[in-house]
Amino acid sequence: MILAAVVTISDSVVAGRREDRSGVALKERIEARGWSVSWYDVLPDEADVISAKLSDLADVDHAQVVVTTGGTGMALRDVTPEATRAVIDREIPGVSEVMRSEGRKSTPLAALSRGLTGSRGTTLIVNLPGSPKGAVESFDAIADLIPHMVDLLHGKTQHEPDASAVSKQKLL
Amino acid sequence: MILAAVVTISDSVVAGRREDRSGVALKERIEARGWSVSWYDVLPDEADVISAKLSDLADVDHAQVVVTTGGTGMALRDVTPEATRAVIDREIPGVSEVMRSEGRKSTPLAALSRGLTGSRGTTLIVNLPGSPKGAVESFDAIADLIPHMVDLLHGKTQHEPDASAVSKQKLL
Amino acid sequence: MILAAVVTISDSVVAGRREDRSGVALKERIEARGWSVSWYDVLPDEADVISAKLSDLADVDHAQVVVTTGGTGMALRDVTPEATRAVIDREIPGVSEVMRSEGRKSTPLAALSRGLTGSRGTTLIVNLPGSPKGAVESFDAIADLIPHMVDLLHGKTQHEPDASAVSKQKLL
Repeated sequence: MILAAVVTISDSVVAGRREDRSGVALKERIEARGWSVSWYDVLPDEADVISAKLSDLADVDHAQVVVTTGGTGMALRDVTPEATRAVIDREIPGVSEVMRSEGRKSTPLAALSRGLTGSRGTTLIVNLPGSPKGAVESFDAIADLIPHMVDLLHGKTQHEPDASAVSKQKLL
Repeated sequence: MILAAVVTISDSVVAGRREDRSGVALKERIEARGWSVSWYDVLPDEADVISAKLSDLADVDHAQVVVTTGGTGMALRDVTPEATRAVIDREIPGVSEVMRSEGRKSTPLAALSRGLTGSRGTTLIVNLPGSPKGAVESFDAIADLIPHMVDLLHGKTQHEPDASAVSKQKLL
Repeated sequence: MILAAVVTISDSVVAGRREDRSGVALKERIEARGWSVSWYDVLPDEADVISAKLSDLADVDHAQVVVTTGGTGMALRDVTPEATRAVIDREIPGVSEVMRSEGRKSTPLAALSRGLTGSRGTTLIVNLPGSPKGAVESFDAIADLIPHMVDLLHGKTQHEPDASAVSKQKLL
């Protein structure tokens, strides 16, 4: 069972001007896989606040995966990638490439997401777009990879035949 | 109407050893969309010169989009990506991914372009390859995204239904 | 004739717990192209050791291309991309994009490779995945580009019609 955190990043949700449809949709999607959404937060588009929360979810709560939604675009208030880059140990560029590449099958605007994927300690952090459709489609595009990434971050490497055999089986 | 700048970066064009076929082809392509090419420059492959011109086009001239052609390859004199990175506020990696991915349908050499896409203030900066064919094909691959990116950089965010509805309509 | 180096990066091969199947497979693959594997090394997953070897192969040995295998994943001991980034002058992101994109046709796990491609002086450095299948498939995906990249790094630019005409001919 994967312990996940959902973090919605949106000034207008914080201000009560919009409902958090993306966060709610992601929670449903994650739970439909049998994983647990153990943490849920709504944050403003403030880099310091976002970085602090991502660090806490990794260092204190030991969430296995944190998915954020919102703040990945080109508007001046969109700072989620910068706030994420400030706290990850290593980036995994191919995962965000997959989300953009798959997303472009729905809309060319998927190319504009600046979202990152990376790890902090043993916690995987994935930036998803802000729209409900974009968030869910991007999550779906990479969800099958998450258990394997979580395994790798917890030291179950590809060199251990048992773990990797099972994971690859599931994926292929 | 979009106000665009075309910047050709080529030692040999500056030296008069070659004509600027790429810059001319891009100007035609941009004007064929009904946009205005309000600035046109030819620069040597010198990082400081390129960075200064890109900064001026953004900070002083407030160009909406700057397209460069040339200097994105692997030769020692190719410094356009470095000169661009030095002056952008934020990178938008997916746009250059699209250009390389689409370009590979014409030639596998498209993978070698190190061109960046990013923004400085409200100005969008896009590095295109140096060959006339590569420059035009890369521009065509992302041209439909430019009006939307310009809107986002000027504060018309995806959260404003009117603006985004129109833009998405055009794109889909 | 291309002078290549193969560098296997694996704690367990160094410790004698595993055979270097990936390095051996790459050597065969490279020689099958008529290129020479002039250097072959097996290194532990230690960033300093890897960086020093890559620098030596570029600065002292003047290898034309260095392919590494191993250490590109997400495990804590996987430091090949960081060790490579520390010594390259410039990154060529599209080449690693091609390897991941082509690799995903075999397995979605290809998205997890964090391998880089870049140059140090006139030496091309390419990080390949650690599994024999992943290493060979990734090499095959970009091998046709290597002679052209080597040419460009040695000053045979796309602006010289003779050299580029031949190379493009071969590739298309």
